[in-house]
Amino acid sequence: MEKWDGSEGTSAFHVPEWMQIQFADQKQEFNKRPTKIGRRSLSRSISQSSTDSYSSAASYTDSSDDETSPRDKQQKNSKGSSDFCVKNIKQAEFGRREIEIAEQEMPALMALRKRAQGEKPLAGAKIVGCTHITAQTAVLMETLGALGAQCRWAACNIYSTLNEVAAALAESGFPVFAWKGESEDDFWWCIDRCVNVEGWQPNMILDDGGDLTHWIYKKYPNMFKKIKGIVEESVTGVHRLYQLSKAGKLCVPAMNVNDSVTKQKFDNLYCCRESILDGLKRTTDMMFGGKQVVVCGYGEVGKGCCAALKAMGSIVYVTEIDPICALQACMDGFRLVKLNEVIRQVDIVITCTGNKNVVTREHLDRMKNSCIVCNMGHSNTEIDVASLRTPELTWERVRSQVDHVIWPDGKRIVLLAEGRLLNLSCSTVPTFVLSITATTQALALIELYNAPEGRYKQDVYLLPKKMDEYVASLHLPTFDAHLTELTDEQAKYLGLNKNGPFKPNYYRY
Amino acid sequence: MEKWDGSEGTSAFHVPEWMQIQFADQKQEFNKRPTKIGRRSLSRSISQSSTDSYSSAASYTDSSDDETSPRDKQQKNSKGSSDFCVKNIKQAEFGRREIEIAEQEMPALMALRKRAQGEKPLAGAKIVGCTHITAQTAVLMETLGALGAQCRWAACNIYSTLNEVAAALAESGFPVFAWKGESEDDFWWCIDRCVNVEGWQPNMILDDGGDLTHWIYKKYPNMFKKIKGIVEESVTGVHRLYQLSKAGKLCVPAMNVNDSVTKQKFDNLYCCRESILDGLKRTTDMMFGGKQVVVCGYGEVGKGCCAALKAMGSIVYVTEIDPICALQACMDGFRLVKLNEVIRQVDIVITCTGNKNVVTREHLDRMKNSCIVCNMGHSNTEIDVASLRTPELTWERVRSQVDHVIWPDGKRIVLLAEGRLLNLSCSTVPTFVLSITATTQALALIELYNAPEGRYKQDVYLLPKKMDEYVASLHLPTFDAHLTELTDEQAKYLGLNKNGPFKPNYYRY
Amino acid sequence: MEKWDGSEGTSAFHVPEWMQIQFADQKQEFNKRPTKIGRRSLSRSISQSSTDSYSSAASYTDSSDDETSPRDKQQKNSKGSSDFCVKNIKQAEFGRREIEIAEQEMPALMALRKRAQGEKPLAGAKIVGCTHITAQTAVLMETLGALGAQCRWAACNIYSTLNEVAAALAESGFPVFAWKGESEDDFWWCIDRCVNVEGWQPNMILDDGGDLTHWIYKKYPNMFKKIKGIVEESVTGVHRLYQLSKAGKLCVPAMNVNDSVTKQKFDNLYCCRESILDGLKRTTDMMFGGKQVVVCGYGEVGKGCCAALKAMGSIVYVTEIDPICALQACMDGFRLVKLNEVIRQVDIVITCTGNKNVVTREHLDRMKNSCIVCNMGHSNTEIDVASLRTPELTWERVRSQVDHVIWPDGKRIVLLAEGRLLNLSCSTVPTFVLSITATTQALALIELYNAPEGRYKQDVYLLPKKMDEYVASLHLPTFDAHLTELTDEQAKYLGLNKNGPFKPNYYRY
Amino acid sequence: MEKWDGSEGTSAFHVPEWMQIQFADQKQEFNKRPTKIGRRSLSRSISQSSTDSYSSAASYTDSSDDETSPRDKQQKNSKGSSDFCVKNIKQAEFGRREIEIAEQEMPALMALRKRAQGEKPLAGAKIVGCTHITAQTAVLMETLGALGAQCRWAACNIYSTLNEVAAALAESGFPVFAWKGESEDDFWWCIDRCVNVEGWQPNMILDDGGDLTHWIYKKYPNMFKKIKGIVEESVTGVHRLYQLSKAGKLCVPAMNVNDSVTKQKFDNLYCCRESILDGLKRTTDMMFGGKQVVVCGYGEVGKGCCAALKAMGSIVYVTEIDPICALQACMDGFRLVKLNEVIRQVDIVITCTGNKNVVTREHLDRMKNSCIVCNMGHSNTEIDVASLRTPELTWERVRSQVDHVIWPDGKRIVLLAEGRLLNLSCSTVPTFVLSITATTQALALIELYNAPEGRYKQDVYLLPKKMDEYVASLHLPTFDAHLTELTDEQAKYLGLNKNGPFKPNYYRY
Repeated sequence: MEKWDGSEGTSAFHVPEWMQIQFADQKQEFNKRPTKIGRRSLSRSISQSSTDSYSSAASYTDSSDDETSPRDKQQKNSKGSSDFCVKNIKQAEFGRREIEIAEQEMPALMALRKRAQGEKPLAGAKIVGCTHITAQTAVLMETLGALGAQCRWAACNIYSTLNEVAAALAESGFPVFAWKGESEDDFWWCIDRCVNVEGWQPNMILDDGGDLTHWIYKKYPNMFKKIKGIVEESVTGVHRLYQLSKAGKLCVPAMNVNDSVTKQKFDNLYCCRESILDGLKRTTDMMFGGKQVVVCGYGEVGKGCCAALKAMGSIVYVTEIDPICALQACMDGFRLVKLNEVIRQVDIVITCTGNKNVVTREHLDRMKNSCIVCNMGHSNTEIDVASLRTPELTWERVRSQVDHVIWPDGKRIVLLAEGRLLNLSCSTVPTFVLSITATTQALALIELYNAPEGRYKQDVYLLPKKMDEYVASLHLPTFDAHLTELTDEQAKYLGLNKNGPFKPNYYRY
Repeated sequence: MEKWDGSEGTSAFHVPEWMQIQFADQKQEFNKRPTKIGRRSLSRSISQSSTDSYSSAASYTDSSDDETSPRDKQQKNSKGSSDFCVKNIKQAEFGRREIEIAEQEMPALMALRKRAQGEKPLAGAKIVGCTHITAQTAVLMETLGALGAQCRWAACNIYSTLNEVAAALAESGFPVFAWKGESEDDFWWCIDRCVNVEGWQPNMILDDGGDLTHWIYKKYPNMFKKIKGIVEESVTGVHRLYQLSKAGKLCVPAMNVNDSVTKQKFDNLYCCRESILDGLKRTTDMMFGGKQVVVCGYGEVGKGCCAALKAMGSIVYVTEIDPICALQACMDGFRLVKLNEVIRQVDIVITCTGNKNVVTREHLDRMKNSCIVCNMGHSNTEIDVASLRTPELTWERVRSQVDHVIWPDGKRIVLLAEGRLLNLSCSTVPTFVLSITATTQALALIELYNAPEGRYKQDVYLLPKKMDEYVASLHLPTFDAHLTELTDEQAKYLGLNKNGPFKPNYYRY
Repeated sequence: MEKWDGSEGTSAFHVPEWMQIQFADQKQEFNKRPTKIGRRSLSRSISQSSTDSYSSAASYTDSSDDETSPRDKQQKNSKGSSDFCVKNIKQAEFGRREIEIAEQEMPALMALRKRAQGEKPLAGAKIVGCTHITAQTAVLMETLGALGAQCRWAACNIYSTLNEVAAALAESGFPVFAWKGESEDDFWWCIDRCVNVEGWQPNMILDDGGDLTHWIYKKYPNMFKKIKGIVEESVTGVHRLYQLSKAGKLCVPAMNVNDSVTKQKFDNLYCCRESILDGLKRTTDMMFGGKQVVVCGYGEVGKGCCAALKAMGSIVYVTEIDPICALQACMDGFRLVKLNEVIRQVDIVITCTGNKNVVTREHLDRMKNSCIVCNMGHSNTEIDVASLRTPELTWERVRSQVDHVIWPDGKRIVLLAEGRLLNLSCSTVPTFVLSITATTQALALIELYNAPEGRYKQDVYLLPKKMDEYVASLHLPTFDAHLTELTDEQAKYLGLNKNGPFKPNYYRY
Repeated sequence: MEKWDGSEGTSAFHVPEWMQIQFADQKQEFNKRPTKIGRRSLSRSISQSSTDSYSSAASYTDSSDDETSPRDKQQKNSKGSSDFCVKNIKQAEFGRREIEIAEQEMPALMALRKRAQGEKPLAGAKIVGCTHITAQTAVLMETLGALGAQCRWAACNIYSTLNEVAAALAESGFPVFAWKGESEDDFWWCIDRCVNVEGWQPNMILDDGGDLTHWIYKKYPNMFKKIKGIVEESVTGVHRLYQLSKAGKLCVPAMNVNDSVTKQKFDNLYCCRESILDGLKRTTDMMFGGKQVVVCGYGEVGKGCCAALKAMGSIVYVTEIDPICALQACMDGFRLVKLNEVIRQVDIVITCTGNKNVVTREHLDRMKNSCIVCNMGHSNTEIDVASLRTPELTWERVRSQVDHVIWPDGKRIVLLAEGRLLNLSCSTVPTFVLSITATTQALALIELYNAPEGRYKQDVYLLPKKMDEYVASLHLPTFDAHLTELTDEQAKYLGLNKNGPFKPNYYRY
């Protein structure tokens, strides 16, 4: 599939009617979307009260909940089904309102539902999923249902389930097995309940982190005979799949949706351009103007952080290991330095590397008083936080997500989110970004499920460019953006199909 | 004083030794500032919990407080004085820590203390003050004390007093009359207790809003015989002074510090460039990229908002009544429109005008679904919020400071802070900005108190440029910024004193 | 006139019908402007061929001209008048086409002609002028004529006259005394021919540099009895007037139009933001991305240069003597340094100070190989070019306006325009900027001529804000910019006249 | 070679000692580069005098040249060789100085010479080349020679040869067959003289446009048996190679260097960000502030143009056919429109599409008076210029590269470079950009020549990422940029070789 030449991809790739990019009438349709039900920011008001806004950890109606494990409860939805396990089926109504609000903010999935509903491209699909269970996921699941799929779902994180949303899905007939605060045993039990069902066998996997895939590999390897493909969303899960592939153990096609163009740009460049400012402001109330900042790493995340801080009047230095990204930093107006060269003078240190121990104890020792240190990259290893947990240093929690680490001479550095991701811990992920991810997942499932024999082998694939473009096109109406259509003459001149794909696979955007 | 020619100002204006701008050694000195005591963000953690972060309304140790009015309490500080009235003198220790933290973030005032302490330029000054009572104000008051002044103080706002800080000041011997939650009667009683003292008569006024000045005019007009001048901080208070002046009733010189260069730029341009983003994010979690925004008014505030949103990828339109500002908007890359022309298409409407009814009900009726409306200008009259309080519209509070106003057809607009100032209600004012204001106030007091007979008449004056420059110079070390000094030859060539002022009064920066 | 309060200015200042800002119909009118005659860029094609594009020194049809001094020639225009002295009256037709082209690019003056033509606000005015004589000046002169004035004109620069334009003006009946390449004796002779006329005595002066004013002071001091005012355009001329004023020798009101808001912003900030890039590219073809640049001075010119270079990916350092401008540089994201700190590492040095010897021989000695040095400030003294004219250094002219100065060790620095103004020598001044200047001059003449007795004394005044705003409003149609008009209610709330002025005089924009 | 996983690429790819990225000492070495000889801008002063600065068409010493065809001349270089054909061997000395200047501006090639000289990675290589023959090409050729290769060279364009440079190369012993102003017959004759040599057969091809490759295919197909590979530089040539490959007729490996990361970013994004401003200023002297501009196409070129114009205060609209690029335009703050929607209101239209007839006669008919139209994309087909060559329209050449096209009603549009590339016709290509291209070509030749059997098949390849990174690393010293080196621990954590490649092949930068 990964051919250099877009036009070849085109000929091998049937584009169904519903998937054609619309050039003219998007705007009108978009303006007609119903506006009666939703309360726009409610889902956010939930997330705001949590410390981790992405996973929306705090469920607001839980306070009076009993302590009984959901596994020990007998629950039925209004249609009499008990094929689910959630915290409290009675919370369904509240969860439904949350889902309705999310629908308003995910016009792309709603448009997909509408366009593909006649054709039902997922008719016959039996999808087992393991993702965060939020209102946005619910919109995805119900879209998959509307396109013909049967779904069973577990949570990919023991804290992130919104119980009300899970209840609403269960009430609507989706077999959901998830609640906030699962034990590890619960976690695997839920996954098992999704796949180990009499009379139902999944033929598609939608995974986020690879745990579901891992479970099936370990417990039910024969199941892969009927599975048409895996769609994986996370960096970690994708990494596992490539390892399987290299080891020759990947026995079905897998789609790496993490590296699709739109997802990458939105999750990284565009989202971080805003969340770096938001995260710093919410935690420290600092003024950006005139501050000296060093950003470690000039990938998409680093580019976003640098652009935002420069625009706000900060003086930004960059460190890089890759000479190409380094040259980009130069051309974009940032001094490329080694961390040592500026560590004594900067007011803020931001890591965006995907690497470990980028900021070491030695660096931390040399920072000036009041220096702010935070991580926008990955996990919690970019800053060597462990090295700060020594007796001679005093930690003082001054605010949620903000610690002062105090040296014997009184110097203190301001550590945000204990070195975990600032953008997840101290900022929010806009629904628009989640919409792009969910739409990408839906299209990847459709593609793998409908691909003719032989298009995909037992390997890891990027989302076909055509699909990537389609995801983008579904989000243009939000901006009242009007795409230009090629004339026949122009399409011929360029050797392109008028509906795309428009670029060779190596195109970098 | 308001001469066209800076050089003339120079000769008429004695610059004391301590006030000379330092060109070489600031950096070293600054780096030596003590770092042991403070906990940097604690004052912020107070302010964050309040709905109005500027006035830091919520006092965190109040929960267990009794309900007795402070006026009915008998309190003494540790030195036996009872010449004060605060909520609870026992909170002094906590308040002291807050003040120590603020000292770290206000290096300019601390430098002023140090430089002028020998000369004591306020020796003999008896200052009565009426401002917000916060940790930053405390640093100002204690600076005035260190420079030789005696002070008595009341609050300019019935909600904004931090009781712990007031207690700490009282404990240190400052006669402070203020607490959070005063009645209107309390408010005037406190002011009266400041001025109506046996054996003590103020000779300087520091006012914020004009209420103190008004009270003295009304009750103790004779007091003005001994008063050397008024320093006024707020737009409203300045307006009142100009009205007095026009009416020929101003009987002492007054200094309008609100319009000093540094204060204007920081309170408006630089502060709003950041707070518009912060305010919108904290309330709505929206993504800025690709959004269409109309900013009403292209003064300093509007310029800051436009620059920030443009930098974040929004498409910004501007409305203006003043052709000069309008032409600036054009040259800065913004389409200049009437509000009507874009009201149907924009995602956000921001008012920054100082005017009233800029956004009318008619405009609100025509906005599209989910349009966000907020005010960065002044008071709460820029948006005609009153027009929305009609039976056919439903209000829904979805989050603190966020209301959805719902039309009969289901359209909703998102109104922030009920049309009050977004930057005060939903964002924070960085201490750096407060530091500039407080330093300006201190220098204005010094100038008026020390001015030779005849320099100031019974009129309203802007801060002498030399002073404005001095405020700026005291804040440069924060940025490790190194000023260049004129050579003798250059100073002669330019006809300037090497210590400034460097510009004619009409210079616009 | 210089009052703090705009509203007072309003009441004292009658705004004639034709001068009212138009809010609604400007656009339509503008679109109707005739388009048949002009060839848009022709005047530029003249200026491009010259080395000094502002003064358009090279006159393109001169090559075959005889060498006879115009003073020795007998010339008559087609109406038989010989009250002029130009190079060659036969060039009139070509000059007329140039003027027609310029008219298209100066819509503000053309609009002024149209609006004020009925009222003829300059009826009876006898204006003697001394400015550069270009097509743009011709549009100004003919506008003054259309408004009722009689004019006599000389050149303020011995090189800058466009002979064809002078001829066209002479042919139209304007007594013009100017040609390209005057001797100094010619220069004063021409001025004298303008003022020393039988039966005609000027009552208004329009000067650019103060030479005309100086001549009248020296030769015909009695003439001032009938003169209503002087309008002066240049920094130098304004400086002279302030000196006269201080010395008590200014015997008529003078208007400093150099410091009007629109002129300052366009001549400095907006024009230099573009011309710094243009000047550097045309001379060196350098790439801006990644280059390290130091800009000396952060006034309007420095601000423009810094903004442009930062936007193009350069890393910019700033030096300043004024702490306020220095703090602005910090907040705008530039490191504030002393020149010494960065002189060894920068690729480009730009002076924008108005000062002398800002870049000394010592600095030049320490620059790295290939460093580019140029001046955007004033005159040719900001860089100590004289210090480079020593035997040990070799000068090599590598291109027009570009010298390499070579040190004994082979290091070379690239000196542009021999330290004279880069923007005048190596770039062009857009007609739009000249239009703003000319409109400002016209309005200043109208104001001084029509001012009631006593409004102006024997002092130097800034252009009334109302006039400044009017100049801006006349240029808005170029951008299809739509101004908003105050409602009656709003005007009352703000205490403003609906037609302006909209700001107090101390407003900084 | 095109694997998803960088780490795999690493193991399969031997990195010779000299090619390792230097992390520490680059700076020092760079600063030692000799500075005595060069006159920095001379090569530019040549190019400036030409109308097409890229091809540097005008050869400055040609004026006195005889008209004899070089093919009819008998010329020998000082060593007695006559195996070349240039205009005039006596121009060699001047050409040599040009080459020496270019060497100073191409530090990457000079570093490559130095590092790889011991190893002589091109020993035994017989390279036939067909490119523009300029000083920069000469530096490339002499570098190839220094690395062990034998070269024979022809020009890829009949106008672009710098005769003096060709003479200098011939004098140094390079068999060069090229002169400015070849006929088409000359053109093919020169190519033939390069390949059709007794006792010498090429084993490597360096082509720019594909003409050389085409000639060998047509005339000497057997030659491919000994050829190890083709390096192709241009879009056109690459397109031909992919067509050959698809048709199964490509019989040697080919390297598409046009699509390497560094080349793409510099030729397109970074170079056009500057040249759009330069091109517009040099031709029209227009002011950018406040202008409305539509940019057709948001690829790398469009992104560069939009960023620059936005930064200069223009209001920019974008048209796109590709939804992904369209979404990027939205997030970067540009309104995405169809050309029709804004064509009546814009001041400038810029095409950057690679497509044809993007601006049609219909669009041109609807533009407003004085609208500027230009092409930054490719060839001269993006604007339908042919449609303007009709009797009812009048063309007026107002300046070099600037035509006014005049409609019967007097409306005129300003067409630049007759629709050919503005950046080539009216701006210059900085040597830094040419340096990146030449270094890329050299490394591609080394790679193909040294690749072990089987690494490359008969297909078209992108430059290995490692090589791309190496090109970038060689250019970092220009910016005094300091790369960070991975620790062993970090390299292991990331699964990367410390010397790169650092990214998977699908990485987008």
